[in-house]
Amino acid sequence: MDPLHDALRRDFASDNYAGAHPEVIAAIAAANGGHVTSYGEDAHTARLQELFRELLGDGVEAFPVFTGTGANVVGLQAMMTRWGAVIAPALAHINTDEGGAPEKVGGFKIVPVATADAKLTPEMIRAVAGSRGVHQAVPQVVSITQSTELGTLYSRDEVAAIADTAHELGLTVHMDGARIANAAAALNMPLQAFTRDAGVDVLSFGGTKNGAIGAEAVVVLNPDAVVGIPYLRKSAMQLASKMRFVSAQLVALLTDDLWLRSGAHANAMAARLRSGIEAGLADSSIRGVAFTQPTQANGVFAALPEGVADRLRERFRFYDWNEATREVRWLTSFDTTEADIDAFVAAIAEATTTSA
Amino acid sequence: MDPLHDALRRDFASDNYAGAHPEVIAAIAAANGGHVTSYGEDAHTARLQELFRELLGDGVEAFPVFTGTGANVVGLQAMMTRWGAVIAPALAHINTDEGGAPEKVGGFKIVPVATADAKLTPEMIRAVAGSRGVHQAVPQVVSITQSTELGTLYSRDEVAAIADTAHELGLTVHMDGARIANAAAALNMPLQAFTRDAGVDVLSFGGTKNGAIGAEAVVVLNPDAVVGIPYLRKSAMQLASKMRFVSAQLVALLTDDLWLRSGAHANAMAARLRSGIEAGLADSSIRGVAFTQPTQANGVFAALPEGVADRLRERFRFYDWNEATREVRWLTSFDTTEADIDAFVAAIAEATTTSA
Amino acid sequence: MDPLHDALRRDFASDNYAGAHPEVIAAIAAANGGHVTSYGEDAHTARLQELFRELLGDGVEAFPVFTGTGANVVGLQAMMTRWGAVIAPALAHINTDEGGAPEKVGGFKIVPVATADAKLTPEMIRAVAGSRGVHQAVPQVVSITQSTELGTLYSRDEVAAIADTAHELGLTVHMDGARIANAAAALNMPLQAFTRDAGVDVLSFGGTKNGAIGAEAVVVLNPDAVVGIPYLRKSAMQLASKMRFVSAQLVALLTDDLWLRSGAHANAMAARLRSGIEAGLADSSIRGVAFTQPTQANGVFAALPEGVADRLRERFRFYDWNEATREVRWLTSFDTTEADIDAFVAAIAEATTTSA
Amino acid sequence: MDPLHDALRRDFASDNYAGAHPEVIAAIAAANGGHVTSYGEDAHTARLQELFRELLGDGVEAFPVFTGTGANVVGLQAMMTRWGAVIAPALAHINTDEGGAPEKVGGFKIVPVATADAKLTPEMIRAVAGSRGVHQAVPQVVSITQSTELGTLYSRDEVAAIADTAHELGLTVHMDGARIANAAAALNMPLQAFTRDAGVDVLSFGGTKNGAIGAEAVVVLNPDAVVGIPYLRKSAMQLASKMRFVSAQLVALLTDDLWLRSGAHANAMAARLRSGIEAGLADSSIRGVAFTQPTQANGVFAALPEGVADRLRERFRFYDWNEATREVRWLTSFDTTEADIDAFVAAIAEATTTSA
Repeated sequence: MDPLHDALRRDFASDNYAGAHPEVIAAIAAANGGHVTSYGEDAHTARLQELFRELLGDGVEAFPVFTGTGANVVGLQAMMTRWGAVIAPALAHINTDEGGAPEKVGGFKIVPVATADAKLTPEMIRAVAGSRGVHQAVPQVVSITQSTELGTLYSRDEVAAIADTAHELGLTVHMDGARIANAAAALNMPLQAFTRDAGVDVLSFGGTKNGAIGAEAVVVLNPDAVVGIPYLRKSAMQLASKMRFVSAQLVALLTDDLWLRSGAHANAMAARLRSGIEAGLADSSIRGVAFTQPTQANGVFAALPEGVADRLRERFRFYDWNEATREVRWLTSFDTTEADIDAFVAAIAEATTTSA
Repeated sequence: MDPLHDALRRDFASDNYAGAHPEVIAAIAAANGGHVTSYGEDAHTARLQELFRELLGDGVEAFPVFTGTGANVVGLQAMMTRWGAVIAPALAHINTDEGGAPEKVGGFKIVPVATADAKLTPEMIRAVAGSRGVHQAVPQVVSITQSTELGTLYSRDEVAAIADTAHELGLTVHMDGARIANAAAALNMPLQAFTRDAGVDVLSFGGTKNGAIGAEAVVVLNPDAVVGIPYLRKSAMQLASKMRFVSAQLVALLTDDLWLRSGAHANAMAARLRSGIEAGLADSSIRGVAFTQPTQANGVFAALPEGVADRLRERFRFYDWNEATREVRWLTSFDTTEADIDAFVAAIAEATTTSA
Repeated sequence: MDPLHDALRRDFASDNYAGAHPEVIAAIAAANGGHVTSYGEDAHTARLQELFRELLGDGVEAFPVFTGTGANVVGLQAMMTRWGAVIAPALAHINTDEGGAPEKVGGFKIVPVATADAKLTPEMIRAVAGSRGVHQAVPQVVSITQSTELGTLYSRDEVAAIADTAHELGLTVHMDGARIANAAAALNMPLQAFTRDAGVDVLSFGGTKNGAIGAEAVVVLNPDAVVGIPYLRKSAMQLASKMRFVSAQLVALLTDDLWLRSGAHANAMAARLRSGIEAGLADSSIRGVAFTQPTQANGVFAALPEGVADRLRERFRFYDWNEATREVRWLTSFDTTEADIDAFVAAIAEATTTSA
Repeated sequence: MDPLHDALRRDFASDNYAGAHPEVIAAIAAANGGHVTSYGEDAHTARLQELFRELLGDGVEAFPVFTGTGANVVGLQAMMTRWGAVIAPALAHINTDEGGAPEKVGGFKIVPVATADAKLTPEMIRAVAGSRGVHQAVPQVVSITQSTELGTLYSRDEVAAIADTAHELGLTVHMDGARIANAAAALNMPLQAFTRDAGVDVLSFGGTKNGAIGAEAVVVLNPDAVVGIPYLRKSAMQLASKMRFVSAQLVALLTDDLWLRSGAHANAMAARLRSGIEAGLADSSIRGVAFTQPTQANGVFAALPEGVADRLRERFRFYDWNEATREVRWLTSFDTTEADIDAFVAAIAEATTTSA
């Protein structure tokens, strides 16, 4: 069979456009063969627990699921009573990109908070954390995304301040870590330091954007903060029958720090893209590109002159972030190469210096 | 790394204990590399549509999902209004093994019908299909499983009679095909003949038990019977971001009839198991094993003398079906070998002729 | 304005066809005037708590709601985790007449059990109470209806045996008391004796069929069996803003034993209907009427000769129970008079002795 | 029995603290007696349809329910597919005071919009109305409250502009009319003019705050905008068995313009309160009270000097609106008297001129 797709093409649209890291594919193949108990009672899933405990300390437990939305909804549901609500930035993936699954499947309300950089602060949390008794779904959890939907980062201290505030108010803390590897690489500190040790209770550990074909995990850092995850994962249709293949992907990522190496590489490529554009702006080979967010992980957000996005899209795919302001989002991934970046910077130069 | 599991071990517990067919693993690897559009707008998913149309005729559309429960709930929800109910055998997987997801995620009621062989009949459907207006969730769909949870089969004519009855009553027809390959192989007729042409409106096409690592599809045979599947798949958390890897598994199964070859092989192994036991019973090398269901697909159900199950389990894993009657379920899969069967028959002989 | 309806007409269709007891109307009027705190912090609701404690002992708490379905769903939801299921007779109102609200609003699964007389037994409960782990919604509650949907009764000992079994199995017990007054009158013992003292954990106390315009209560007999009712009542849209008017109705029913007097009267009218028919059958003034259930509360179930129901309906409204067997249901209510019964018996005599 | 509450006390806390209008109580009594068909097939409910058609034109249909939350959730659910979302002010009752029922029972997402005066504008709607395909619950309805949660009003033209925008964008329009009578009285124009004729598709018609004991209606102004209300009302537990008593309350309100007279009276009392305070501020008999919203219906919102609220509460109950800014809400109702207002103004004078 001829290949169905161009295995050399790379874009800047999403870390979901990328395929899987070869080590992940190899791990899937290695997990094959023979009969093993289904639904998670297998050696690969047991191995995964060991690896997460090495990374995050004793007592943590990981529940592999299929998608980031699945991890978020299962984890959050386990953290709340039936009358709960979660405080999150209005830009949070759970609020904007999960097709209403939090409300429809999770049954909980989201209290969205307006932010400039997709980051909550203790003050924002205090402003909305109060309960109005039975009349309003009761805020029970704070959810933050690390790295954020705008490519920004919470520092370890920022996470700790949020967690301290939440805990003081009787709330628990959820971290959507769909891009946790990019955060860990950028912060350059142990995962445990800015999650569990900073007070995060439950982490959605993202594997898919990091190079899996499809594997995430609800990682319970504080067992007292959750109830019933095995049941909730099943009823939320996130329980894999042949779980060994989901777990094996995550095992591969956690082996020899593949997850961290891939996150660091993607970040480096984003930094290279940003500095390439900055250099171009400095020497006027690139014109009119205005960054709209700091580049702290694997995303570059920028406003483009009119017509530039269309011209660039003749060769590279990427998404508009805000059509009204001509803001676009460029993401890098584990497989983005320096050559990819350099070609893209050159294309930006050409697109911004050619009249339409 | 030492292998985490014994790649040579094979049991009779579940087709979910088996791994994946090597052609599926190869297809995953071949789908890797390069950037492709996420969430289903990729060449592998497009190719899958072509293959399903070759198999089931023009106009069908397939929506890949992660699990059989996911396929059933998304498909059924798309077939019903918010006040709908589905008529199904009490033994149906949707009623017994999906953790309440049909009710909790799908929001619909199941009207369970008692059956001897897990098969509905037109008469059973007529008996419960009436609407009581607003006072009761309104039966809108009939769901049948092919092959059934008891390893039995609906003939083409039985499916057609059910569908005719359902349609006459204003209901549509859903087929849970978690083991559709075993059914197609056993019926020895084109898939279309006993599904679409027999009046089935929506098919849950099962890939996982057939040799995928985790891939199913909601296959819409009658577009007029559903609404909103793309949205419902997303909000049910069954939409894969890197969908190419789910689709590629199904493409592999549908290429060169792998699905059918695997189904036929598993069936043949179940038949070999049954005839081996029958021969043993005939020559008294096996004693006291009583079959409880016909073996029409890849399952053998039998009641065992006291103590036999325990002795057998020292070497082979399998599940009790009904502890009270000492009934057990033995399932074969695509990778079960003749040698596996022969060893198991020998073990049964030993276990039934040795005093406890 | 001319009256919109015939205030003298009485039928045998439903205790919901009846209006309200004059003492209830008077109580509503007496509760009017002035401003009181909304949502339940009022003196009428406080008085209701006192009355329920007089009736059922210290520590019980009552939560007024609008409908029987509301009481059942709120109470049951409070008794279960998100992965729970309730064991109930297939004929239970929650399974047949609540429009799927238990599944759709309550989010729980019903495990329906086939019964001859709408009554569960300990054996039936044991047969379905087992958990299959995450794969099936976990039975957590047993729900029985007193008096039942077929007009039958559980004796105190039958309730106790069910509750003992349920508790032994780790389940709690819910009683749907939409017609609890008829049961209490028929059993001729204190309400507490066959509810709380017999092991019932939560009671849906029915007021509407007993002579309220619309008032029921979730009565928590065992506080350890529930969680979060105030929140669940609100999110289930069963929290009255001007709750004083709902509570006042229930206060009226519980004052001077109005509930019990009304229940006893309705029962007596059903008994008079039955004995009237029996006398008619004995002297052949009535022909061909066959009772299908014992008459233990306020319902008479009977199979009629062909054509009789239609002739009777020219003058009296009532419902078919089973069209196939020509079984009908006749219900009496607090306002049924002896003259009503006698006229109906005469009409049955005429209808069964006139050729069609 | 001694009266359980002080029938002469009146506060400014909520229109739900008030009781019922005597004509409503009389209507309940008049609806009593005799047997009528349950669940809405009765003459009182039929009469209600006639009255709503007189008020709102041919073709409208009203579905009585118990609560405002019930009316909103049933109506909105009927206006949306399973993947829908509703655009509403962040201050909307559906977002802040319905205990999460919209999400939990309705299954839909709310897209909250920040506003200064609880009023949407066409621009606000355009800013959030876009669909992001399957990734986000799809905005399908715009919900506005009339009069608003801040006591403000939409003019007829403002409603029409919102409806035109919504319809142009393919959305429908819901109006939460928990205080529709106050709005109609204040706008001094026919109800139809600023609802149906202005493009509103579904109206939650509020009776409870207007003098019913508990009666609201989903009024469908545009039948093409909804589907399945009878079923949704039942499964949402908002279907009254003895519906005649709910309908009779609404019939009473709509007879001889009681609803409008009551609304106008409440508005006049709020205006008297405001002008009384304004006069006090002018002559310095009242000090330091700052109005925070215009008084267009039956609410007065004001910021008070420190300590004043506490002193006032020694005699009158009312709620804080924003503790941080010492803003309070005072509501009047159909039974507020001029003497009540004058006494309250005097109390404000005393409280604001006495040192703490």
